[in-house]
Amino acid sequence: MPPGMSLDPVISCDLMGLMPPAFKTVAVVGKSDAPAVPPVLAQVVAVLRSRAVRVLMDPPTADASPAEADGVMPLEQLAAQADLAVVVGGDGTLLACARGMAAHGVPLVGINLGRLGFLADIAADQVSASLAAVLDGVCAREERLMLAGRLRRQGEEVLASHAMNDIVLSRAAIGTMIEFAVHIDGEFIYSLRADGIIAATPTGSTAYALSAGGPILHPGLSAIALVPISPHTLSNRPIALQSTSRIDIQLIRGQGARVNFDSHANEALEPGDVVGIACAAKPAVLLHPPGYRYFSMLRGKLRWNERHS
Amino acid sequence: MPPGMSLDPVISCDLMGLMPPAFKTVAVVGKSDAPAVPPVLAQVVAVLRSRAVRVLMDPPTADASPAEADGVMPLEQLAAQADLAVVVGGDGTLLACARGMAAHGVPLVGINLGRLGFLADIAADQVSASLAAVLDGVCAREERLMLAGRLRRQGEEVLASHAMNDIVLSRAAIGTMIEFAVHIDGEFIYSLRADGIIAATPTGSTAYALSAGGPILHPGLSAIALVPISPHTLSNRPIALQSTSRIDIQLIRGQGARVNFDSHANEALEPGDVVGIACAAKPAVLLHPPGYRYFSMLRGKLRWNERHS
Amino acid sequence: MPPGMSLDPVISCDLMGLMPPAFKTVAVVGKSDAPAVPPVLAQVVAVLRSRAVRVLMDPPTADASPAEADGVMPLEQLAAQADLAVVVGGDGTLLACARGMAAHGVPLVGINLGRLGFLADIAADQVSASLAAVLDGVCAREERLMLAGRLRRQGEEVLASHAMNDIVLSRAAIGTMIEFAVHIDGEFIYSLRADGIIAATPTGSTAYALSAGGPILHPGLSAIALVPISPHTLSNRPIALQSTSRIDIQLIRGQGARVNFDSHANEALEPGDVVGIACAAKPAVLLHPPGYRYFSMLRGKLRWNERHS
Amino acid sequence: MPPGMSLDPVISCDLMGLMPPAFKTVAVVGKSDAPAVPPVLAQVVAVLRSRAVRVLMDPPTADASPAEADGVMPLEQLAAQADLAVVVGGDGTLLACARGMAAHGVPLVGINLGRLGFLADIAADQVSASLAAVLDGVCAREERLMLAGRLRRQGEEVLASHAMNDIVLSRAAIGTMIEFAVHIDGEFIYSLRADGIIAATPTGSTAYALSAGGPILHPGLSAIALVPISPHTLSNRPIALQSTSRIDIQLIRGQGARVNFDSHANEALEPGDVVGIACAAKPAVLLHPPGYRYFSMLRGKLRWNERHS
Repeated sequence: MPPGMSLDPVISCDLMGLMPPAFKTVAVVGKSDAPAVPPVLAQVVAVLRSRAVRVLMDPPTADASPAEADGVMPLEQLAAQADLAVVVGGDGTLLACARGMAAHGVPLVGINLGRLGFLADIAADQVSASLAAVLDGVCAREERLMLAGRLRRQGEEVLASHAMNDIVLSRAAIGTMIEFAVHIDGEFIYSLRADGIIAATPTGSTAYALSAGGPILHPGLSAIALVPISPHTLSNRPIALQSTSRIDIQLIRGQGARVNFDSHANEALEPGDVVGIACAAKPAVLLHPPGYRYFSMLRGKLRWNERHS
Repeated sequence: MPPGMSLDPVISCDLMGLMPPAFKTVAVVGKSDAPAVPPVLAQVVAVLRSRAVRVLMDPPTADASPAEADGVMPLEQLAAQADLAVVVGGDGTLLACARGMAAHGVPLVGINLGRLGFLADIAADQVSASLAAVLDGVCAREERLMLAGRLRRQGEEVLASHAMNDIVLSRAAIGTMIEFAVHIDGEFIYSLRADGIIAATPTGSTAYALSAGGPILHPGLSAIALVPISPHTLSNRPIALQSTSRIDIQLIRGQGARVNFDSHANEALEPGDVVGIACAAKPAVLLHPPGYRYFSMLRGKLRWNERHS
Repeated sequence: MPPGMSLDPVISCDLMGLMPPAFKTVAVVGKSDAPAVPPVLAQVVAVLRSRAVRVLMDPPTADASPAEADGVMPLEQLAAQADLAVVVGGDGTLLACARGMAAHGVPLVGINLGRLGFLADIAADQVSASLAAVLDGVCAREERLMLAGRLRRQGEEVLASHAMNDIVLSRAAIGTMIEFAVHIDGEFIYSLRADGIIAATPTGSTAYALSAGGPILHPGLSAIALVPISPHTLSNRPIALQSTSRIDIQLIRGQGARVNFDSHANEALEPGDVVGIACAAKPAVLLHPPGYRYFSMLRGKLRWNERHS
Repeated sequence: MPPGMSLDPVISCDLMGLMPPAFKTVAVVGKSDAPAVPPVLAQVVAVLRSRAVRVLMDPPTADASPAEADGVMPLEQLAAQADLAVVVGGDGTLLACARGMAAHGVPLVGINLGRLGFLADIAADQVSASLAAVLDGVCAREERLMLAGRLRRQGEEVLASHAMNDIVLSRAAIGTMIEFAVHIDGEFIYSLRADGIIAATPTGSTAYALSAGGPILHPGLSAIALVPISPHTLSNRPIALQSTSRIDIQLIRGQGARVNFDSHANEALEPGDVVGIACAAKPAVLLHPPGYRYFSMLRGKLRWNERHS
């Protein structure tokens, strides 16, 4: 590691080791339908090729990529084989990819096509330099807590999914509100009438949960935020819990209510259904190029440097 | 009017006149399926009979009532014939009834079966005394602004309805958010990504809009509150507008979005649809028994006399 | 008035009449210590001189101005003699000037030296064109509600002042909170433990009150917002009242508490003191150059066009 | 420990061991001027005497107590000698006592004279049974994070104090706002104009920080909440940080600003002053009688079982 390199002292990050890490097989995944993607994919592959790395892609990325891959396979298989995933797109693309990669401990690097995201923090015009740095191990490694959710109906598991941002129970457009009961580690907390409730990771705390009035949880804090959405009881304020907490949310009433995981997987809920939420066994691992600062990114995204008066 | 009677000096209220008002035909409407309703209906009818008033009911109320009516007809016809409507149920029952009565200028009195509501403010055990006072004109008359909403699709009106509480555009349970553009009096205000948006009357300002972070609007204030629900832009705060404002909300994106009026009438929205909102031509008229105080009621409902620490 | 001129249809505004208004005597007031002020004052005077208008200044402005005035006198006398006040500075300067001018019905035009303010909406580089338009009567006239506050101690008036933004009761840095009782039109509303309470005009609703969680009140809405600051009771939410309301706030407890008016006049409070707040007899009058739009200005100031995700 | 005893499974709690802990010397501290205190002190001493425990008091408590102590000494000496502190009063009394006891690792039991507090959770009429259970080791032990704050002026330490609830920087009543810069672990986070800022422990998260819009932090979560008070930038939302964070808040502007620690110690701030905040070396230790549940207590205090509509 070159002297003077600046690694974020705030987030929990480790160097990859003094010896460059052995990234021998790298998965490249791109948001396939964005017109800006192909040239960036070409750049990514060029950097990887210059280091004799084996390049894998999922089918849609392979279709969009001007440069050929050494192997094409579904995302699940990529996760099993790769040492690193390079994601080209935005926060949404990285989020979708992270759910698969986290279970196999594959670290992710995100390249953003538009303005920088919360997660995908390499700008498209910095691909060569920043990706090279990451491949050399000159980067910060950051673990991001994942949630594991299970929907149980009459004692049987109906759906299980991981979430990097949040697990959300919400009412239908047609209904007025839903009622649910929350237990934490088996203890009854409250029953709540509301538009819904969000269980958010620190990563998700700056997404939907922030709009609903939740706090920002620093990614280094091992916590889960429980944020009610438009609760009927005004004192039902957001709560931050230890990540070891087991949260059970049971639907009491609410026709058309649904649960969703990172807005991708979702399922209709029936009264009596229980959504169990806990920290996933493995976190997602993000690699950031030198110079990454969580708060600096947040300051820019939330325009903390500006005032309304 | 007896000397010393206490009428609320805060809300805009007029005495009914020195001569008792001529309530010759009174509509009685009850939430038909509540077991507590029949005995209260019997009491209400007894008070009315003792004054030689003609008693009308809608069919479900007539079915539930132990005392017979002088006429049974649908709600719309009741509104056309009655001088007064006595509503037995709760705030929801009164709300539903008010939409029909307001257009004909029929004042309403609400009798609450459970704990007192925001609107139905005569307790079941006070029926005889309080209703007698109202019939004698010893009461406060309060006008409550109503909203008139119209859903237009490709230039054609799809749905029109009044609302006493609110008109709400909201996302589906399955979607993540909706995007819409708001114009006021033809001027573009903002385009917003959110869970939805609420246009609330002062009456509705203490209902759903309050849960979503809106202000309390005093019923005497002729205003409409525009309250975004979980907006993506944190500076999108609730706005209170003059009641003469014409509000147009156009759906830009949002599969499964719907509009509802007081949570009763509702309709699916398609991109491009416009919901036009304005103050209705006629307000709802509530008659309150002596001693009614808006803030006193609010203080009790919101437990302003208690602290968390 | 030239055809096609665009006047804001939202705010309550009247043309100055088909004949150009007779602005014969114009007060020019500038924030005296800002280095950018003198050249702008020179421009303002040049525009006025070209129309044979009598130019008056207060002493600090006369000192800062490169161009001479026809008369120099204190602000109070300016208000008595002028037909129009041109204010060079920012929102704070205009606010201070408006308190004096409003009582005499003198309309104000604000020229902003930095980025546009909520009130001072002529950019420094638009002075010639915009000011000329206003002098020609090509402008929108907008009335802004003012508050009149009186501090009474043991039945005697200790202080009286007007406020264009807000009247604020707040705790000392050293204390923990204050307790006060609020009456509206003589009716007890609540007693509250909090950091303080704000009574804000629509103009002030986008200033301090917004930071404290208050709603935005459209300037055309004749209302006063009552916004508690960090209340101990979570259900003590902001309330919007009719502008005809008389608000009395009595300090119950709170060593070191003070009241301030637009952050300018202020006074220590003793337990038992009552701050009486009502709408002032005369509004402030703002003249806006063609093209002014309240919501367009607000959209820019609050960055409604941006999202955090 | 008797079989079937119910200990709170949520909070991080350890049994005192199978053998009753050796509470040989117990400090008794009471809010001396409350008239309800003496009889409760008598009961407390009676329970302690029946177990041959040495009873110590601070001078004000000894003055108020009908029963004599075995030793009377200042609070600091009590902390050095006692194995346990029994605090009679309310949350405020326990808070004041905890700051001294925590540094010596002395656990605390709180007896509440009024309605139950967040911290003092033994009702006055349960003293005998509950205190006996605690002395027998039938209780839950809970650690509560403490903050250590230091005020530095031109490189020198001016004041240092611990806080169990919060460390607060706030503006004077007379000023309008203060401006300060926040660094976390040496990284610049933001500069903020606001009424102030609160650094709160989980214990303090349900006190002042909750009024200012902060989240509830579960006491088992090792975190510090940073809550801005009425910030000028609407996106400056509360942040929850790891308890290992070092927070530095520097006053940039703000005449009359002060810092306070649990509202007890406080000091005027000068521009340039830095308040450094970190987790204290030792937590406060609370002993709860059987049946204590954090969320059950919170549910009652915040009236989560009630709705406004």
